[in-house]
Amino acid sequence: MSRVEPSFRVCALFGHPVGHSLSPAMHNAGFEALGLALVYVAHDVEPGRVAEAIAAARTLGYRGLSVTIPHKVAALECMDEVDATARAIGCINTVVNDQGRLVGYNSDGRGALNALREAGADPADRRVLVLGSGGAARAIAMTIAFEARPADLTLLGVVPHELDKLASDVAERAGVRARAVALEDATLEAAMRDAQIVIHCTPVGMHPQSGHSVVPAALFRREQVVFDAVYNPRKTKLLGDAERAGCRIVSGVEMFLGQALVQFELWTGKKPPADVMRCVLEERL
Amino acid sequence: MSRVEPSFRVCALFGHPVGHSLSPAMHNAGFEALGLALVYVAHDVEPGRVAEAIAAARTLGYRGLSVTIPHKVAALECMDEVDATARAIGCINTVVNDQGRLVGYNSDGRGALNALREAGADPADRRVLVLGSGGAARAIAMTIAFEARPADLTLLGVVPHELDKLASDVAERAGVRARAVALEDATLEAAMRDAQIVIHCTPVGMHPQSGHSVVPAALFRREQVVFDAVYNPRKTKLLGDAERAGCRIVSGVEMFLGQALVQFELWTGKKPPADVMRCVLEERL
Repeated sequence: MSRVEPSFRVCALFGHPVGHSLSPAMHNAGFEALGLALVYVAHDVEPGRVAEAIAAARTLGYRGLSVTIPHKVAALECMDEVDATARAIGCINTVVNDQGRLVGYNSDGRGALNALREAGADPADRRVLVLGSGGAARAIAMTIAFEARPADLTLLGVVPHELDKLASDVAERAGVRARAVALEDATLEAAMRDAQIVIHCTPVGMHPQSGHSVVPAALFRREQVVFDAVYNPRKTKLLGDAERAGCRIVSGVEMFLGQALVQFELWTGKKPPADVMRCVLEERL
Repeated sequence: MSRVEPSFRVCALFGHPVGHSLSPAMHNAGFEALGLALVYVAHDVEPGRVAEAIAAARTLGYRGLSVTIPHKVAALECMDEVDATARAIGCINTVVNDQGRLVGYNSDGRGALNALREAGADPADRRVLVLGSGGAARAIAMTIAFEARPADLTLLGVVPHELDKLASDVAERAGVRARAVALEDATLEAAMRDAQIVIHCTPVGMHPQSGHSVVPAALFRREQVVFDAVYNPRKTKLLGDAERAGCRIVSGVEMFLGQALVQFELWTGKKPPADVMRCVLEERL
């Protein structure tokens, strides 16, 4: 029988589309495991309508929101307060309704950072290479710069204005040395020689193009830690190549789970039941 | 594990307070029994804020609402369309969101009417006595007049303007013979001699004043059907006296369940699993 009682508050996903989201299953399993008076639903919010939807959630006293594509940037503008890292990233994926006051966070980068730390690879004082300059790259690079203080960040990508903007934002806002380099064979080879942690944030290798990788297998060195933000497939070609080279690897699944764990803790103030949520995620992937 | 998937739509109770409502447990059990992609939550909506809350529910694509005290009158004004019986009653307790178009209904009277019919006591062509003139009396009298066409309705009460308004509305809107009579010993005795169906809609006999009844025990006649809108206690003094006199009795629990079954069918288009919902209700009462 349903456990939903009148005292329950709602958390929701706002996205478009939302049909394949694993967030309801994961968060509801977590809420249930801790016996919390919360239930998580998904709302398909059309492009351009997120401000209205956020106002509605505030009116109805929703406790929290997950915000995903295409609403992450517009949602930031609807907040009463935005976490410093999220503001530097320029978008949010998490809202906490604190007695009617909406506070925005970005848990994507923190999910990745926590996953790296869990794998024994704290970026602090390390030389970090980020491949890509889109949303995931921006969230991860900025969060690592703000919260883990790497020795330096090298950003390789193919969209010059995005790449330059990210490097200068990391340098100016977080005070971390960062350089933007056009992604070419020679620059990649040089960057791979130097990097201690490699973070892949391009869509290359994602299902159904899972046979591809940005990084030639020969460039991995066994002392590197390699992270892939892609989580479908769970072990991308890039991660497989890195593993064969002896690298420690961290899957995008860990980032996806990690960002949900951060959200859960922001909404509930409680340590999330990570094993339960991981189990739901793995069942469904 | 929670059954809530991204495709699920929300139904909600709007009231103030909502803490003791049995509706979430009842409706969620019904949704689950039929495997429907719906989840029911409760929102405490402060007095004067129901229009805003209804707009929010429309924005977020809620499938349906239950509306209760103190919002039933104000909610009617927020609808795109109102069922004829509900308009005659002057308030709604049910909203169906039909692709963004909000349609209001009042399922309270229908719940009572269905309960009477289930007990083999259709008010059609019967002489019906209604005791009281408040919200429940109005919903039941108007619904019976519109939908069951009794021979006549006698309304006994102690609030003259409410009573006269209800009698004249029943007569004018539904075209059913109705008279309003001040509730006194002599008028009650006369009305009880005449009535085939007795419907009690005053708060007398409700917990914690369960020792009282509006109708002296000696006035019941064994050929009468006696209904009490009060459902706490389940068997009021009035129902106990009527039963001892040999009358067929119908408890307010049947009306409460009946209004929920009507709501369920309006939202889902499916025959509600009445046994499952009754079972949840009885467990909790």
